Formats: sequence, structure tokens, C-alpha cells
Amino acid sequence: MTGTSLDHVGIATEDLDELSSLYTELFGAEVAHTETFDGMQVEFLAVGDTYFELLEPLEPEGAIASYLDREGPGIHHVAVATPDIEASLATAAEMGVELIDETPREGAWGHDVAFLHPRSTGGVLFEFVEH
Amino acid sequence: MTGTSLDHVGIATEDLDELSSLYTELFGAEVAHTETFDGMQVEFLAVGDTYFELLEPLEPEGAIASYLDREGPGIHHVAVATPDIEASLATAAEMGVELIDETPREGAWGHDVAFLHPRSTGGVLFEFVEH
Repeated sequence: MTGTSLDHVGIATEDLDELSSLYTELFGAEVAHTETFDGMQVEFLAVGDTYFELLEPLEPEGAIASYLDREGPGIHHVAVATPDIEASLATAAEMGVELIDETPREGAWGHDVAFLHPRSTGGVLFEFVEH
Repeated sequence: MTGTSLDHVGIATEDLDELSSLYTELFGAEVAHTETFDGMQVEFLAVGDTYFELLEPLEPEGAIASYLDREGPGIHHVAVATPDIEASLATAAEMGVELIDETPREGAWGHDVAFLHPRSTGGVLFEFVEH
């Protein structure tokens, strides 16, 4: 699949506002989008042409809350933008990569997203995203 | 500090060749640079304008070998490119961010690099890099 690019690094945090202020000052990052999504406060911070996606759970359940309980704050996933998420998922499936989402679903910012299981991608939780 | 951008995501692996093949096929990534550096095999894989930096230890000692022992394979750090690494470090120090490298040192690919301690940056090990 050509035409891919690094889209964002997702970071789990217990204090989104504090981390947003820190990265804004430290990296010159700029707030590009905020929303509540799927029981989380979500903020995309632009750094050049890519983003940090800050994720703070608003409920005790859910993937990010579980991640924080288990791992503490830090990098949760890496998102690769693709011009054709269906084709990227088909490639992954043909390669034997384990898919968390077999078909795209609506993610934050209204984008189509699908996650790949880290046990088949070198320990990294990858997300495909199509804008 | 303005003019920063996401440069690369550093990934610790026990099998660089296998992971390189996987990411090449899965993401259309292209090998941009390889070298042995500081007791590691290092490969930069270009994905759009950013990179995955694959890191495989060649010796049982060292930061990446320790990381693999402790955490297993996966994301090790995130590098932010800066046009002026000295200025970025000064900003970080003024903000009270804990510096692992108080002055830049030569990293892989001959770039100037300096790491920030994850306990003051939301659990993420950040690297400043100046090309």
C-alpha cells in the first residue's frame, strides 16, 4: 500500500489539559480538534503535519481507562494514514496480520479507523485511519 | 519553539529484518538508512515524511536490550524534529522538564539528539532531534 503516512501518536493521560499545555509550550504544538468521543476527552495537537492525540477517559470503563490502570500514562497507539483503508485492511489480512477491527468503524474526528493487534505487528498497537 | 515536527517513532525489536519486511509490505514503508550504532542495528523506514526507527540490540547491555527485557518489543520513544535543539532544550529546562541529556549528543544517522525523561512528559520518552 503506497501513499501512507504517519498520522498521529495516541497518548493515554489522566490529565489532558495539563499534558496539552505542556506539549503546546514544549513543542509549539497547536490544538487542532477537541471532542468527547466514546467516553473519552480527545484532543488532537498538531506538530508539523502530524498530531498527538491525547486521550483522557471520562468513565472508569473502556480501552483507555484499562490501559491507564495496566500500563500507566504514555503512548497507546500509532496511527498510519492510508488513502484506502479497505485496501490496507485487505493487505493486512492477506499477510496474516491479526485485525482488531475487520472492517472500518467511525473513530474520533469522524475518520474511518481500524486497529491491528500488537502481537502481530512487533508489539505496537497500530491504527489505520482514512480522513 | 515553533517549526517542530514529528520525526520518527523508535521501536525496539528482537528481529529487525522481520519487522522491516512486515512494515514494508503493510505500510509501503521504504528503507531510508541503516547502520550499526551504539551496539544496535538501526534502520530508518520512511512512511511519508516521517520514519519508523527500528532498533535491535547487538549486545546484551544497553538501553534497548534493557527495554526489551523489561517491556518486551514495542514503541521505545517518539522523536520531535526541531530547527534548534539547544533552544528546545533551554525551553524544556526552563519549564522544569527533566532532561536525560542536558546537551545534545550524536545519535543515529549523525543527527544531534537529546532525550527528555518520561516522568515529566506524560509517560512518553521524547527525543529532540536536529538534522
